[in-house]
Amino acid sequence: MNKTVADLQAKIHADLKKTYNSGPNSLVKTFNYVISGQGKRIRPILTLLTSKSLFGNYKKSYNAALAVEILHNFTLVHDDIMDNDSLRHGKKTVHEKWDTSTAILIGDAMLAKSINILSESNYDDKLIKSFNSALLAVCEGQALDKEFETKKDVTEKEYFTMIEKKTSYLIAMPIELGALAYDYPLKDAKKLFNFGLCIGKAFQIQDDFLEIMSSPEIMKKSLNSDILLGKKTYPIILCNKKDKNFIKKIIKKHKKAEQIIFEIRKFIIENKLDIKIKKTIENLYQEANNFIQTIDFKSNDLLNFVNRIKTRKK
Amino acid sequence: MNKTVADLQAKIHADLKKTYNSGPNSLVKTFNYVISGQGKRIRPILTLLTSKSLFGNYKKSYNAALAVEILHNFTLVHDDIMDNDSLRHGKKTVHEKWDTSTAILIGDAMLAKSINILSESNYDDKLIKSFNSALLAVCEGQALDKEFETKKDVTEKEYFTMIEKKTSYLIAMPIELGALAYDYPLKDAKKLFNFGLCIGKAFQIQDDFLEIMSSPEIMKKSLNSDILLGKKTYPIILCNKKDKNFIKKIIKKHKKAEQIIFEIRKFIIENKLDIKIKKTIENLYQEANNFIQTIDFKSNDLLNFVNRIKTRKK
Repeated sequence: MNKTVADLQAKIHADLKKTYNSGPNSLVKTFNYVISGQGKRIRPILTLLTSKSLFGNYKKSYNAALAVEILHNFTLVHDDIMDNDSLRHGKKTVHEKWDTSTAILIGDAMLAKSINILSESNYDDKLIKSFNSALLAVCEGQALDKEFETKKDVTEKEYFTMIEKKTSYLIAMPIELGALAYDYPLKDAKKLFNFGLCIGKAFQIQDDFLEIMSSPEIMKKSLNSDILLGKKTYPIILCNKKDKNFIKKIIKKHKKAEQIIFEIRKFIIENKLDIKIKKTIENLYQEANNFIQTIDFKSNDLLNFVNRIKTRKK
Repeated sequence: MNKTVADLQAKIHADLKKTYNSGPNSLVKTFNYVISGQGKRIRPILTLLTSKSLFGNYKKSYNAALAVEILHNFTLVHDDIMDNDSLRHGKKTVHEKWDTSTAILIGDAMLAKSINILSESNYDDKLIKSFNSALLAVCEGQALDKEFETKKDVTEKEYFTMIEKKTSYLIAMPIELGALAYDYPLKDAKKLFNFGLCIGKAFQIQDDFLEIMSSPEIMKKSLNSDILLGKKTYPIILCNKKDKNFIKKIIKKHKKAEQIIFEIRKFIIENKLDIKIKKTIENLYQEANNFIQTIDFKSNDLLNFVNRIKTRKK
C-alpha cells in the first residue's frame, strides 16, 4: 500500500475517535463502535489528496474530511437497517448488535455531528452548500434504490440517475470540498466535482460487479442479500435486458442465494456481460479525465489514488 | 384563536407543501403526508413572532421558520419509530402507514431538506450554527430519553438535562433564529435563547402532565405508551420520589394501560403532586421572563403567543 495513503488512513482513523466523546454514554459508545469499523476511508482521503494535489497540503480541509467520513457512516448505518444487512466492515451492524432504535439514533447523531464539525470550522458558504446538497442527493438516491426493488423494468438511464445520487455525490462532494476549503474558483471546483461524479459511477458499477463475482470473505460484508431484496444492480439490469425474465426465473428455480449467484455469474460470463461492464467502467474513467484536462495539479497524489480505486479487487 | 396566529398557521401549512416537490415519488409522497399533519406549528410561529415583535415583520426569517418546522417533523417521524407510536396529529405515523424503512428515509430527507433550505437562503453563520447545535442537542436528548427508559432512579436534575436537549432547544433555537435572521446582536439573541430554554422546559413538563391527566381524544396522539415503555416523564419522576417503587407496583398489579393511568392520576392528586408540577411550570415562566427584561419589543405578539402556549389544554 502507498505510504501516504496508509498514513492518512491511520491518521483519519485515530482522529475520528476524538470527534465525539462528550455526549450521552449510549451515543458515544455506539458512535465509536461505528467509526472504529475497518472502512477504507476513501472519501476523506479524496478530500485530503485533492487539497494536497492542488495546494501542497491539506490543513484547511482536514475537518471537512472528517465530516465527510462521519456523514458516509451515517448513510451506512441507516442503509444497513433498510437493507437488513447484518455485517459491515467485518463487524455486526448497529441494528444487529443493538437494535433498530439505536441505529436510527446514532445515524441521526452522526449526521448532526458532521454538520456541526463543518459549521464550527467556519468554512465558506460554497463548501457548506456542496456538503448539504450531497446529503439530500444521498437520501434521494437511497429512496430510488428502494423504489427500484419493487419496480420491474428499471432502465440503464434510471439506474445511472440512482447511482449518481446514491453513490457519486458522496465521491464528487468530498473531492470538491478539498478544493473549496482553499477558496478555489467555483468553476474549477465544479470540474473536479464532475470528475468525481464519473469516478463515483464507475466505483458503484465496480462494486455491483464485485458483489456478484466476489465472495463475502473478500468483501467483508454480507452479499447475496441485494439480489434477494430485488436490488437493481448493474449486472442485474444487464441480465434483465438480455433476457427479460432471467432473474425471476432463476430465483423461482433456485432457492438458495449461493445457487442463484452461481447461475447469475454463469449467465454474465456466457453472455459476455462482464466485458460490457468493464467497458462501461473504462468509459466512465475516460469521461472523468476529460473534466480535469485544464486543472493544474501540483502532484499526482489524487490521480494515483483514483487509479488505485479503479484497480481494486474488493 | 388569535387572528394573526391562525393566519400564520395557515400560511406555514400551505407553504410547507411547496418545499419539496421535485424528488423521487416515494419521498415526495411521504414528505407531503407528514407535513400535512395537523401540527400546531408552534416552532415556526415562535420564529416569525419573534421577528415581528422585534422588527415589525418576518420576511427575512420566513425560510428559517419553514426549516424549523421540517426539522421538528424529522424528529417526530424518527421518535415515533423508536417509541413505537401509531398515531400522530390524528393520523397514522409513517412507520405504521408504510414501514420502518420509509420512516427512516423520510426523516433523513426532511432533515436534509431543512438544512438545504437554510443554506440556500444565505443566512448568516451565527444562525446556521444555532440551528446545527439544536439538531445535535435534540439527538442527544432523545438518546437520554431512551437511556432513562431502563434506568431506575432518574433524578430531577437528570430529567431537566434531558428535556432541555430533547425539547427546549427546539423552542429556544426557533426564537433565536427570529432574531438572528435580522442580524440582531448575538448577546441579546442569547437572552432570547435562554428565555426559550425555560419556556421549552415548562412546555415539556406541561406536556408530560397533560399526557397523564388528559385523554387520547383530546391530545390526538397515542398516550399510555410512554408509561409502559418506562419513560421518565415529570409526573413519574415525582411519583417515584414520593414512593420509590410506586410505578413498579402499579404496573405489576394492573395489566391494562387505562387502569395504570387511573392509579397514577389518583396518586398524583392524593399527594398534591399536581400542585407541585403547576408550581414548577409557573417558576419556569418567571425565570423565562427574567431573561428578557432588557429586550426592546416593538409589539407583544411573541409574549401573547407564549402566554397562549402556557394556558393550553392540549
